Parts: sequence; C-alpha cells; structure tokens
Amino acid sequence: MSTTEAAPARRGRPGYDRDGMLAVIVEAFNDHGYDATSLGIIAQRLGLSKSAVYHHFSSKEEMLELALEKALGSLQEVFDAPEAASGPIDMRIRHVLRGAVTVACGQLPYLTLLLRLRGNTDVERRAMQRRRELDQRLRRLFELARDDDSVRDDIDPGLAERLTFGMVNSIVEWYRPEGPLSPEQLADAVVAFVRSGLRVSETRDFR
Amino acid sequence: MSTTEAAPARRGRPGYDRDGMLAVIVEAFNDHGYDATSLGIIAQRLGLSKSAVYHHFSSKEEMLELALEKALGSLQEVFDAPEAASGPIDMRIRHVLRGAVTVACGQLPYLTLLLRLRGNTDVERRAMQRRRELDQRLRRLFELARDDDSVRDDIDPGLAERLTFGMVNSIVEWYRPEGPLSPEQLADAVVAFVRSGLRVSETRDFR
Repeated sequence: MSTTEAAPARRGRPGYDRDGMLAVIVEAFNDHGYDATSLGIIAQRLGLSKSAVYHHFSSKEEMLELALEKALGSLQEVFDAPEAASGPIDMRIRHVLRGAVTVACGQLPYLTLLLRLRGNTDVERRAMQRRRELDQRLRRLFELARDDDSVRDDIDPGLAERLTFGMVNSIVEWYRPEGPLSPEQLADAVVAFVRSGLRVSETRDFR
Repeated sequence: MSTTEAAPARRGRPGYDRDGMLAVIVEAFNDHGYDATSLGIIAQRLGLSKSAVYHHFSSKEEMLELALEKALGSLQEVFDAPEAASGPIDMRIRHVLRGAVTVACGQLPYLTLLLRLRGNTDVERRAMQRRRELDQRLRRLFELARDDDSVRDDIDPGLAERLTFGMVNSIVEWYRPEGPLSPEQLADAVVAFVRSGLRVSETRDFR
C-alpha cells in the first residue's frame, strides 16, 4: 500500500519540492501513526539529513498541519462553492457529495491522516474541530432538505449525515487511483446510493 | 471515550473474569494501537502484576486473537444464520445488515480493533482474511440480488458491498450505547438507507 501511491522516484534528490516531501511524510504518518513517526524515520524516507528536513519544515507539527490542510482546505472549498450555497437543496447536496468523493479520491493519504487523528496535540484538535464543522454543514443541508420535504423524515438529519459521511470516508480504505473506477464514476455511484438506495423496487412496505 | 464504556469498577480485584479483563485490554489496544500496547500498560490497566496477567493469557497475541474473535465470531454467526441462507434475497440482505449493525453496536470496541488492524502479525493477517471473506459473502448476496433484478444494475455488487459496509463500519466511530439511539433503531435506519436512500421523491431523473 505504501509503495504504490505518491511513488517519489526522486527521493532525496534535487528537485524534490515541499509538496513532494509532504507526500512522503504523510505516507510515513499513515504507516506508523503520527505520534510514532520520529523525525529520524521521516529523514530516512526522504533520504535527507534531519537538518535538511528542518530547512523545509520547522517542526513535525508543521508537517502535520500542512498535510491536514490539504484535506480540510479541499473539503472546505467544496462547501464554500456557490453550488453548495444556493439552488435546489437536492442539487446542493449533490454538489457536496460529489466534491467530498472527489477529495477522498484525490487527497486520499491526506484524508486518511485526518480520519485517523487521535487528538493528542493542538494541531490535531483544531483539525478535528474543523472536520466537525464540515460535518455540521452537511447536517444543515439535510435539515433544509427535510424542511422542504425532499428527504425522508424517518432518518434524523444528524444520523443521515453520519451514515453518508461514513460511506464517503470509507472510500479511503480501498480506493486506488490506478483501479478501474474514476472519481467521477464513484461520485455518481455514491450520489445514486445516497439518493435512492440500492433497490430497484420503489415499494417501501417492509422495514 | 476510554473510560465510559466497559467500566470495570472491579479493576484488579477478585471476580475479574477473563471476559472482563479482555474488555480492559481491548480498550488499551484501541487507545495505543496493538503494536504500541506493552504488557506493562496492560498489567497497569488491569491493576495486576505481569505474571498474574500471564496466568490468564499466554501472550499478547492470544489476547488479540480472543478479542478479534468476539467481532468476527459474531459477524460470522450473522452470515451463518438460516435467515441469511434462504428466503427472498431482499430479506437475506436485510438480515445481514441488521445483524452487522447489531454487532457494531454490541461489540463496538472489538469491531473497532478489527477495523484498525495493520496486518503486522499472523493473527492480524488471519483476522483480516476472515473479514474479507465476510465482505465477499455480502457481495455475493448483492450479486444474487442483481441476478433477480432486485437491486439496481448501475452499481457493481462489489462497490455496493464496500459502500454498505463502509456505512455500517463507520458506526463504531460515533455510536454510544448510552446515547438516544437503540441498536434496533439504528439497524432500521441503515436498512432503510441502503434499500431506498434518503430522498422522498422516487423519481430518478437526475444523476
């Protein structure tokens, strides 16, 4: 898993930019857990000395913050887009779902890092707080949808949000960019699933 | 989080049975990660000496194996039940979904442990293999449902299985037994979501 993605063939050579370094670092965080990833491990993976690493990043916390920003900033953009702010509520939800799936596929290691945080440092706690605020924004959309009767009223908007994000977030567990499914196809499938479920039959007589 | 559940008030006192010890141990595994949980940490949490711990468990791997069995054995029972083996395919899927949600709620810390395995030991790899086999059994049910046209054909059965188990497994991230939602209510909501999605409208004209 750790060797297939981000494959930085130029490990430690000139031309290794900060983003490229961050990709290697986040891989180390995901393999060992943030707490257990020493600067020694990071320097070794980058093929650099510790002091060379410190030339680019002031601390391990700064690396974490930058890595988390990739996931959180991208998700925030999705929610801040005009398509999420106005128009029929159903289309606003669709925009957010498609955007969240696209972020999951495109920022996969960074979202993985975000989802596995344990909250042991301030940086982690701030990121978890931002994640909760985004959760609440999806919940708010489901509340609006319930208010205009476009979603079922037997599933609480908070529960709908949790199950929906649970489904979307699970994508990081198995999605591989080199696999058969494009992010767009996956986004279509998730939107379809969330909207109308898996059944062909439209009857709702048993539950 | 770690102190609310399993609350073993009799920590280290007589009457502490193997299951009670296991509940404390799995909490330690989930807090620190299996690899990072030393026998010292376990003994301290149990309020026992290391040799007393060894009186009950032959090794840390045995503890892991017993803990994982709680989740895997329960899930396996769900799939092995007669309700999963015969009858209308829709009801077989319903049985499995309800059972999986019930296991997620009832064996919460044990399922959490299973879902976070990294596969560094034989015990972990065997458990992950058993988990994959259960995934495949749900996938097989979705294949059967597609064959008799009871689920939509624009979502591949493998993808349907992943998104569905993604939703179900995410329950361990937030479900609290002392919260407002009973396992039965949550199972109803998941079955409803998976079957027919969140929308009230039955039209499927945009996607």
